[in-house]
Amino acid sequence: MNRSAVFLIRTEDRKGLLSAISGFFAERDLNILECRQFSDVLEHQYFMRVAVELPPELTKAELEAQFGQLAAELHLSCSVHYSGEVRNVAVMVSKARHCLYDLLTAAEENLLGGGRVTLVIGNHPELEEVAAKFQVPFYCCPISRSGDRAQEARVMELIDRHRIDLVVLARYMRILSDEFIRRYPERIINIHHAFLPAFMGGNPYRRAWERGVKMIGATAHYATADLDEGPIIEQDVERITHESLPEDLRQRGRDIERRVLTRAVRAHLEHRIIISGHRTIVFSA
Amino acid sequence: MNRSAVFLIRTEDRKGLLSAISGFFAERDLNILECRQFSDVLEHQYFMRVAVELPPELTKAELEAQFGQLAAELHLSCSVHYSGEVRNVAVMVSKARHCLYDLLTAAEENLLGGGRVTLVIGNHPELEEVAAKFQVPFYCCPISRSGDRAQEARVMELIDRHRIDLVVLARYMRILSDEFIRRYPERIINIHHAFLPAFMGGNPYRRAWERGVKMIGATAHYATADLDEGPIIEQDVERITHESLPEDLRQRGRDIERRVLTRAVRAHLEHRIIISGHRTIVFSA
Amino acid sequence: MNRSAVFLIRTEDRKGLLSAISGFFAERDLNILECRQFSDVLEHQYFMRVAVELPPELTKAELEAQFGQLAAELHLSCSVHYSGEVRNVAVMVSKARHCLYDLLTAAEENLLGGGRVTLVIGNHPELEEVAAKFQVPFYCCPISRSGDRAQEARVMELIDRHRIDLVVLARYMRILSDEFIRRYPERIINIHHAFLPAFMGGNPYRRAWERGVKMIGATAHYATADLDEGPIIEQDVERITHESLPEDLRQRGRDIERRVLTRAVRAHLEHRIIISGHRTIVFSA
Amino acid sequence: MNRSAVFLIRTEDRKGLLSAISGFFAERDLNILECRQFSDVLEHQYFMRVAVELPPELTKAELEAQFGQLAAELHLSCSVHYSGEVRNVAVMVSKARHCLYDLLTAAEENLLGGGRVTLVIGNHPELEEVAAKFQVPFYCCPISRSGDRAQEARVMELIDRHRIDLVVLARYMRILSDEFIRRYPERIINIHHAFLPAFMGGNPYRRAWERGVKMIGATAHYATADLDEGPIIEQDVERITHESLPEDLRQRGRDIERRVLTRAVRAHLEHRIIISGHRTIVFSA
Repeated sequence: MNRSAVFLIRTEDRKGLLSAISGFFAERDLNILECRQFSDVLEHQYFMRVAVELPPELTKAELEAQFGQLAAELHLSCSVHYSGEVRNVAVMVSKARHCLYDLLTAAEENLLGGGRVTLVIGNHPELEEVAAKFQVPFYCCPISRSGDRAQEARVMELIDRHRIDLVVLARYMRILSDEFIRRYPERIINIHHAFLPAFMGGNPYRRAWERGVKMIGATAHYATADLDEGPIIEQDVERITHESLPEDLRQRGRDIERRVLTRAVRAHLEHRIIISGHRTIVFSA
Repeated sequence: MNRSAVFLIRTEDRKGLLSAISGFFAERDLNILECRQFSDVLEHQYFMRVAVELPPELTKAELEAQFGQLAAELHLSCSVHYSGEVRNVAVMVSKARHCLYDLLTAAEENLLGGGRVTLVIGNHPELEEVAAKFQVPFYCCPISRSGDRAQEARVMELIDRHRIDLVVLARYMRILSDEFIRRYPERIINIHHAFLPAFMGGNPYRRAWERGVKMIGATAHYATADLDEGPIIEQDVERITHESLPEDLRQRGRDIERRVLTRAVRAHLEHRIIISGHRTIVFSA
Repeated sequence: MNRSAVFLIRTEDRKGLLSAISGFFAERDLNILECRQFSDVLEHQYFMRVAVELPPELTKAELEAQFGQLAAELHLSCSVHYSGEVRNVAVMVSKARHCLYDLLTAAEENLLGGGRVTLVIGNHPELEEVAAKFQVPFYCCPISRSGDRAQEARVMELIDRHRIDLVVLARYMRILSDEFIRRYPERIINIHHAFLPAFMGGNPYRRAWERGVKMIGATAHYATADLDEGPIIEQDVERITHESLPEDLRQRGRDIERRVLTRAVRAHLEHRIIISGHRTIVFSA
Repeated sequence: MNRSAVFLIRTEDRKGLLSAISGFFAERDLNILECRQFSDVLEHQYFMRVAVELPPELTKAELEAQFGQLAAELHLSCSVHYSGEVRNVAVMVSKARHCLYDLLTAAEENLLGGGRVTLVIGNHPELEEVAAKFQVPFYCCPISRSGDRAQEARVMELIDRHRIDLVVLARYMRILSDEFIRRYPERIINIHHAFLPAFMGGNPYRRAWERGVKMIGATAHYATADLDEGPIIEQDVERITHESLPEDLRQRGRDIERRVLTRAVRAHLEHRIIISGHRTIVFSA
């Protein structure tokens, strides 16, 4: 398996972009493994994901210098990602274990792109045993009398020290401060246990039962300072009936939450997502 | 095919109900075609739907007198419905035609229980041609200068004169007055073109696009004075992507809306629904 | 709205294709509205769909001459389709009306690309009234004593005389001869009322009930000489329970069949499909 | 939480059954927690699931003696199951780990009714580490030169010695002998990685790709001597596209297989299933 690189590109939509960009790779005789693009005709934006094979003799520095020139000419926003790069993922949890298990087993089966779960951070000690099964360090950062700020400071220290690329809130039941959220822009993914924007806020299963909905869902989204308002990455639902009690909804939700969250994390780690305001472009596999 | 009757029963949950009620039918040697019950353990309510075959010699008057005695003893709320009873349905529309077509073709294929579409009422003239194809009278009741009240009065007069059992708001794009809604309790079904409670109110496809959701849906519910808050009967969703423009969502919604609405109308006309506060018990087929 | 053209392209997969083809359009300053491609790495085939805006001064002849040169150089198989081209669709039916209704109403709402239903052909007279509602000519071609061949000859004569671009078998319950199928390659779409390849052949709802499956489905596919083996375009399913009788499955199937068939017909008429052996590439909207 | 019992009942359908059986519980003043019944009008069979609360003074022996009398009078086939009974589950595996993980984590979260995973049996050693994480004994029973028979004998010895109530084939990639299957009637649940009856037999994802289906699925069923023909308990599907390679289908299948299998195992262990020939009655939660 040769090395490969993924380019995530964004620019104002206009004529000739596809030809100019694909021409860049053709001139260098690089093999395009996959190319996806999307023109947002309402916002006049152009989005592109190109995966190319890299020949052994081409260095990253050369590639980026050359592409950087094109990007400057065409005013492209661009990020480049290489196969073989390991990405550090921190999972933040409280007491619910299903999402954590799913991320750890997906990582074990190499289903998270280049991601590996580097550490698990809990505000409760319960899930230490789960992390231990997979030999992943677990840090218990409880909310103490000194308050949320002190706890967050400890969490940020852990994240920074372990050079974390992505923070996953896997049913972490505390609201994070704006400061925390802003420190890791486009690098925090949260799972909300409802089909957003229905049932924003707390206790969505109880409220779903009270409202008498006939389907429940879950939503994975990037965390932003506006709680539950961040760009949605993935959603799914299942059908329920009048017989489902709030507790049943919680159980049914287990399958939905974990698959939605793991899919979203995988899409991020495979460099398939470009954020555009409140929306995401997901070039799905 | 013999005559049959459907009993919809509701009472406070307690021991012995099933035995007492099924005993009533067994003593009379009536064949139970289908029996469904549900105990709402949170609200302590008991719901039951019993369909029985009726022998030729048993009159409705006798059956109801006898069951009425049991109902009084056990404090049952109950309604009885007989096979062969035709039920008059009025469909209210504006300009979108897909839901109206679906109801008319379902009625033509005898898929609406004992329901037949007796009249179509539009606040615009556009759908007269659709009603005409099925030989259903169409009444155009535009909003004139004399205002909504005058128009609603005309609509109510039509509904009452035609002895309408069920009013279906099939993408009727006006908000009805409280007075109108309260005149037909549990007899108005509306289709909302969103997965309620997400995107309550107007323009849900545009807002779904802006919010970047990955699935869109539709919700059929009983109309109540609280707009978009009535008891939900049926919901469904479909997956969309970043490529779907608001106009695409509208087209995709076409299939969801009409199947959700027609299923809800069928469930109502087959006497499968009991309303319980904000929720519905739907004994699905 | 300007004129536009859709190119459907297929060739052996290799480097430089995207650049060469998109370069063609960039050199001519043509605006690419949508571009989708797919490399089948198992079969080493490259598939592409490009939609471009056409300036008023560019004639079809010029465009095709110029692109033809490129196609020859690069060994592209290609078809070009223009906005505004009307495409004639013939719908073949027996007695079931739901798919026919769905195609006729979709056409009425301009949801079938450039397609219009030009004629309906039934081997039974029942659906004449449905076609009549939409002012579409209905031809009854019953199977007479002279047999299937004579009937098919009459149908082929109708199809040819009306310059039909696409034949839709909308629950047409006769098996067509190889000769018939081969006469209209990639131009006949059939709906099978099962999730193929499960329950190939007749009576799938009965057999689904006997087998006790928990979901039923429908499959739209191109008709080929191998019955029920043609390239699949679209499929969908719904969940059922042990309570669903074969007759219930038939009713539930109504919604699935019609939406699957109409989506497939729309994808074909919007030039979104390329057939590749037993498989289809569907560049979905 | 009081003790409770679940009765699974089957008999020929006829009048008065519901009254007679519910009368039994009412006479003894037992509280019915849930009662579901189903009349199979095609096969003239009656199925019932009744869950009742048990007062402390009522012994199992008394209850069963008394109900046994009713069952004899009414010719009921019946099984009774008590809350608090632990049920021993053996999971048989090869190399794929996702289904095993799902069963072990579901058991850890008490989502398998009264089931606990007592042992894991592999024909390969790979998954020993997975079992070890959950402190579940793992037995490696490879196919040796002495052949399948010798290996099966060892497996049967393990199952019998550990008093296993349910054997789960969690992507166990060997075909079991008729003798093995017949030894544990209605006590072996298998997951097939296809939407049966499509793609019976081996390599379903490859064959699904070749056939070009647009959805893939999985099926949990009781194992019978007719391979892949046993009564289906649960199925689910997901939508795929032409871009999904056989390897992608395998990954997508991971989520479907494990949730379908775990749901089926849970339904069995919660005594929600009655087998009827090739079909199952599943009184779903």
